[in-house]
Amino acid sequence: MRPMAPAQVRQAQSSLSGFPEWLPAARIVEQQFIDTLRRTFELHGFSGIETRAVEPLSELTRKGETSKEVYLLSRLQADPGEETTDPAKQLGLHFDLTVPFARYVLDNAGTLHFPFKRYQIQKVWRGERPQEGRFREFIQADIDVVGDGALPLYHDVEMPLIMHEALSALPIPAVTIHVSNRKVAQGFYQSIGIAEDLLAEVLRVVDKLDKIDAGRVATELVDVVGITPEQADAALRLAQVTGADAEQVRQGVLAALDGADPSELLDQGLDELAELLRSAARRRPGAIIADLKIARGLDYYTGTVYESFMAGHEDLGSVCSGGRYDSLASDGKRTFPGVGISIGLSRLLARVIGGGMLEVTRAVPTVVLVAVADEAHRGASDAVADVLRSRGIAADVSPTAAKYGKQIRFADKRSIPFVWFPGVDGEPDSVKDIRSGEQVSAEAATWMPGDEADLAPRLRTVGDAAGRPGEQG
Amino acid sequence: MRPMAPAQVRQAQSSLSGFPEWLPAARIVEQQFIDTLRRTFELHGFSGIETRAVEPLSELTRKGETSKEVYLLSRLQADPGEETTDPAKQLGLHFDLTVPFARYVLDNAGTLHFPFKRYQIQKVWRGERPQEGRFREFIQADIDVVGDGALPLYHDVEMPLIMHEALSALPIPAVTIHVSNRKVAQGFYQSIGIAEDLLAEVLRVVDKLDKIDAGRVATELVDVVGITPEQADAALRLAQVTGADAEQVRQGVLAALDGADPSELLDQGLDELAELLRSAARRRPGAIIADLKIARGLDYYTGTVYESFMAGHEDLGSVCSGGRYDSLASDGKRTFPGVGISIGLSRLLARVIGGGMLEVTRAVPTVVLVAVADEAHRGASDAVADVLRSRGIAADVSPTAAKYGKQIRFADKRSIPFVWFPGVDGEPDSVKDIRSGEQVSAEAATWMPGDEADLAPRLRTVGDAAGRPGEQG
Repeated sequence: MRPMAPAQVRQAQSSLSGFPEWLPAARIVEQQFIDTLRRTFELHGFSGIETRAVEPLSELTRKGETSKEVYLLSRLQADPGEETTDPAKQLGLHFDLTVPFARYVLDNAGTLHFPFKRYQIQKVWRGERPQEGRFREFIQADIDVVGDGALPLYHDVEMPLIMHEALSALPIPAVTIHVSNRKVAQGFYQSIGIAEDLLAEVLRVVDKLDKIDAGRVATELVDVVGITPEQADAALRLAQVTGADAEQVRQGVLAALDGADPSELLDQGLDELAELLRSAARRRPGAIIADLKIARGLDYYTGTVYESFMAGHEDLGSVCSGGRYDSLASDGKRTFPGVGISIGLSRLLARVIGGGMLEVTRAVPTVVLVAVADEAHRGASDAVADVLRSRGIAADVSPTAAKYGKQIRFADKRSIPFVWFPGVDGEPDSVKDIRSGEQVSAEAATWMPGDEADLAPRLRTVGDAAGRPGEQG
Repeated sequence: MRPMAPAQVRQAQSSLSGFPEWLPAARIVEQQFIDTLRRTFELHGFSGIETRAVEPLSELTRKGETSKEVYLLSRLQADPGEETTDPAKQLGLHFDLTVPFARYVLDNAGTLHFPFKRYQIQKVWRGERPQEGRFREFIQADIDVVGDGALPLYHDVEMPLIMHEALSALPIPAVTIHVSNRKVAQGFYQSIGIAEDLLAEVLRVVDKLDKIDAGRVATELVDVVGITPEQADAALRLAQVTGADAEQVRQGVLAALDGADPSELLDQGLDELAELLRSAARRRPGAIIADLKIARGLDYYTGTVYESFMAGHEDLGSVCSGGRYDSLASDGKRTFPGVGISIGLSRLLARVIGGGMLEVTRAVPTVVLVAVADEAHRGASDAVADVLRSRGIAADVSPTAAKYGKQIRFADKRSIPFVWFPGVDGEPDSVKDIRSGEQVSAEAATWMPGDEADLAPRLRTVGDAAGRPGEQG
């Protein structure tokens, strides 16, 4: 009578830094996370797609900025003259799922129905310097909606709610989604007289609020960017506005203007933000707050932007981010606006697994090990296992007809909860719960574990494990 | 009143040959195939793992033979001097799942429990010449069992039965698994006096039986390989032995010896083959036949080998293959024998999808489109959708409050079967099956589609579609 040890959830030995691999128990965690995300996305009507791992370099470097992080491909046995410097022919691994999705939308624009809602959970690669210890291969989980010509604001509103629902279904600390809107920032700066061409610089400096104090940010805004002290003060007041109540946020922003007239763009941005906050308050109270200091991202998104933080793990940075692009893709004639949000799943898992936050009841899918009395009776054991499997109960048959004690140890080492003993010479079969030691007569055609939760490995947050009733033998 | 058109299952437009992509309907097929394989493998106690996409070149070329097909990686922004010709440092994409699995077993030999049963469903890459039209990215689905020092024959027996069970659960023509055994071939050639060092050459020539007639094979065996005409005749008699009955196969092989004494190795091989056939006859009659002309693979496997053919699609070649390695991996001190079998999933899907063999009822997960009466009532539609989703019913809310006719067309274009109309001003909600036109009052908290099969897109083989009752409106 003893509790069965849960399987250790940890990383596998890996000989290549930046390419994480999981031992089987941790892979169960990863798979259950992926299954949960997929299920939530499908309940919201998103189609799953996968794109090829490879894009032409010209596609990957279209935005310039991330070109440093691309892995290029070449054939080991390339033909003479096959090497190319033409970026339209040179292939590289994708570094995110947005660039390939935009290309997929253009390739299939004649066939897809718009607005097109897709989720995509795939590995991406970044050619980081080997010594930097960053992930060079990791899984992203993205949802995006893309329209043909126009895309209703409704999708900006639903996107963070769906992602919050998905994250809330995972056994992780609570995540809060912080939202802002490019039109609010840009409209605000317009309203207080900051020139359009300084916008990116102002945002870049305001983004330092996480690292340096407001006074130094103000000084840099004035001395380096060249806006007035009054404009700098107003920009800092805007960055302090935060909250979940639509009306309060609007008032906060207007107050930060300190008497300046709001521009049309600012009004429009505030209306969009208010719509999102009102819907969030109704559908998922506590999920979303406006946070107008969000700057990173505002320079390439065109409207709503999202960042997300996990309670107690704010040091990890944003665990899921995104926003609206008015032109996710364009073929010159048609423009496809999009709004999306992306989880850095591997980074989240590395924290959850590396931090020992989860355990799993076992590292194998097996519910029952069917023992083998002797090799002459192996057929009876196979038959029991086949019946159990046909009823959805994962079963292994002992690979050897060793003494029963040894076969039970085989199950115990793997935390397989039940061992089945086929009856020999007309005796009934019996099954033993090796956690409690209890052994009962059973028939393969009707038996089920007393707790149906035993049918699959279960995740538990480590703090919970001791306190949960019914988990001990 | 009309049948709803099923979604077209076909390949996406792809601008890079060899890198297939699917439109959403075809991705549903691929995902359901993967889910089915995974479920079968887990019912048999296999742990899912994933390995990194990348291995050192020294690892990838350990077996030499396939080194031609490797994609090498380099960083676009490599530092000066970072380029390497050291194959232990040069990275490449894996071209199968066996090499990475062997490496993973060695990396984690101190932690894994042996025998270790794992499945792995992942993309692999082959750096084929661009003009050859072969897949350069595709999914493989592998199961392997690996032991520490020894691995019981039981696993050679179960492996093809599990794969046959998995393939039988897919909506594809019947697959038959053909088995042979290296020990039978080698032992047979020993018994008739062929020198050990000619074995690989004999196998290579016998493998031509698919393409050229037996007379020409015999001539080549004698003239090129240098065995006697009598030995060539015996080798061809062995290649003709086929059948599902263990005793008949044994008699066939012994008869092919034409009086020569069977070697110990031949006896051992025949015992192994017989055990497999007897178990298969008991557990999955018709799934497996011995086929002693299988030669490809015998030169690198050490015991049982598998190849598989899909009825009516024999031209596709083997759809799933594998066998036993007495040394899947070794660290010099410990040796890890393995037995496994691998499906070329993308190639199978390309045939099934490209051949128009399947259709899918719709290309989106959505069961219900919730209509929006006007923007002021959008909250009521969101609430209905959230209740449906919480009950496992995938729902979309109309992105615009257009006229109902237009909202119904939105659903129709996507083959979403139901449109929900929230009651305005205290009226009850109603839901319309747009296939039949039938509209009934409903409550989100209790409604279910009359046919629960409508809860997810369904695959149908095209031949079946017309004949199935209940599919038409």
